[in-house]
Amino acid sequence: MSTTWSDTGSAPALAQLAPVLSAGGPGLSRLLGLCERRLLEIAEGHGETLGRHAISTLEAGGKRLRPMLVFLCAGEEGGDAAVRAGVAVELLHMATLVHDDVLDRAALRRGRPTVVKRAGRAAATATGDFLFSRAFAELALTRDAEAVRVLSSASSALARGELLQRADAWSDSVTPERYLERCRLKTARLFEAACRLGAILGSVGPESAGALGTFGAPIGVAFQIFDDVLDVSGPTERTGKDRGADLLDGTITLPLILARRRDQELAALDLRASVTDTAQAGAVCDRIALSGALGDAREEALRFIAEAKAALTDVTLPEHRREALDLVADGVVERYA
Amino acid sequence: MSTTWSDTGSAPALAQLAPVLSAGGPGLSRLLGLCERRLLEIAEGHGETLGRHAISTLEAGGKRLRPMLVFLCAGEEGGDAAVRAGVAVELLHMATLVHDDVLDRAALRRGRPTVVKRAGRAAATATGDFLFSRAFAELALTRDAEAVRVLSSASSALARGELLQRADAWSDSVTPERYLERCRLKTARLFEAACRLGAILGSVGPESAGALGTFGAPIGVAFQIFDDVLDVSGPTERTGKDRGADLLDGTITLPLILARRRDQELAALDLRASVTDTAQAGAVCDRIALSGALGDAREEALRFIAEAKAALTDVTLPEHRREALDLVADGVVERYA
Repeated sequence: MSTTWSDTGSAPALAQLAPVLSAGGPGLSRLLGLCERRLLEIAEGHGETLGRHAISTLEAGGKRLRPMLVFLCAGEEGGDAAVRAGVAVELLHMATLVHDDVLDRAALRRGRPTVVKRAGRAAATATGDFLFSRAFAELALTRDAEAVRVLSSASSALARGELLQRADAWSDSVTPERYLERCRLKTARLFEAACRLGAILGSVGPESAGALGTFGAPIGVAFQIFDDVLDVSGPTERTGKDRGADLLDGTITLPLILARRRDQELAALDLRASVTDTAQAGAVCDRIALSGALGDAREEALRFIAEAKAALTDVTLPEHRREALDLVADGVVERYA
Repeated sequence: MSTTWSDTGSAPALAQLAPVLSAGGPGLSRLLGLCERRLLEIAEGHGETLGRHAISTLEAGGKRLRPMLVFLCAGEEGGDAAVRAGVAVELLHMATLVHDDVLDRAALRRGRPTVVKRAGRAAATATGDFLFSRAFAELALTRDAEAVRVLSSASSALARGELLQRADAWSDSVTPERYLERCRLKTARLFEAACRLGAILGSVGPESAGALGTFGAPIGVAFQIFDDVLDVSGPTERTGKDRGADLLDGTITLPLILARRRDQELAALDLRASVTDTAQAGAVCDRIALSGALGDAREEALRFIAEAKAALTDVTLPEHRREALDLVADGVVERYA
């Protein structure tokens, strides 16, 4: 059993968030409730077909980690604008998941059938585009153009990260630096945006947006590294998917990059030719684990968590919110520390 | 030779726009030039891989009909904000084209290889997502939240229209009303948004946004009807694609809907089973043409053009801009009138 907050986890486990909710106080729970209600309203408000797809994506859950960062950075005074920003970052996140599932032809996400599985590629692509659009529509309602700029900049970064990942697929020469650059684009920029949006729209004020962004970004990098470690370590019962999915679609992650440096046979392995089913992928996962690369990757992630927490010391924040943000940071890596 | 401004035309034919450019004056040409330069800047400014895909999409051209509507509605005083809005609507339009090509597995667009053909589904999906994001980023730079709201609302409508189209694929019971609803969502809403954005950001003023939107929307519907007529009528040399592409992917358009009412055999035809290659599609196109449905569809489109021009009389506009907007409306249907 783990309390790592992985998006690839089999089911939302809100109990894991209890310490954060407790530290965040009733204000945080209230904002999360409003966020949930608004997400459902948006999913239901645009016709039956779309509603079916959007609601199923919504219900597949996730832990609303990004909205939580918005709300903790905004504070209770963030009010409506913060709720809209939380909704917007979650919609954007959901849009990318729906498009990823189309590309990966994924049948399940968090234990439920994906939109692409139920309705086909076209409907899933359109559903993703719709969720994208609604993210910006929602944020525009705050009438804060800087907020829209922050989200669209993060959104462009996600797309660039996705392109980088596909460009590097199957490559035998991806460096840790290149891998981290991809994590920054594909994952960290949205965590950063969530924190910046909270600062811009909330009570901390725009002057803290930079510092809170510097807190959010490394959490996103650590989050991605742990996601990639879990893909190798499993166990399947917890992650809800077979080990080695990244290996099978040619995504080169830190555990493999580090293991290749320690194991000549792994370095020489032609993934595309030799890893074509889950059994072979599982065997390579075992070999990566044997090399000790998983521990090194976890340590790398912990360095990013430490970096995040250090950035937080520069911000003037009520104690209960600082504590809750620290707990979020720790939550990403808990049980591995 | 036709001067219909179809996006599916084989190559941009800027000469067709000469009367509009002439009526629009040097201000219009200048704004279109700035728009082109900015589109290139955005395509080039985000890394090499993305640049390659985005620039090829850009260069495949099109006639920048939507930016032109923005600029004519904004007037010369629209300045920077109008250029950004023109860029934003064109980026959004390009994003939908790139995603459509992924779904249709299209090899060519406007005579050039598509992104999906050159770089695969994943890169093309990410490129589309990037173009989406940049559309909102560009518009956010105007710092006008109402403008962002207008664009995101249109963008949601496009996605809903796409879903409607896929839901109705192969159906034998699509009514003209349902078809027109799809045209409104999938095509007209972006034309409407272009006009509204021009009004909001330009010299005509937000109070005319409604009336100019009411001008733009029916132009979009007419545009789509003519596009669908061209898919049946060809000729291939002009449209740059085989006739009957819509029939082959199950898209039920007005010419077929009207023809089914006049030709019992057509009404009874099971498209999915009986139209599986371009020869069969061509034969069904001939049969649709024989029924007289193409003429009826063109007349329906002309009614929308008349509706558009009538809406324009409610707006106070300098004479040269009114004339240019009338020419744009006529250009959508010219040679069929």
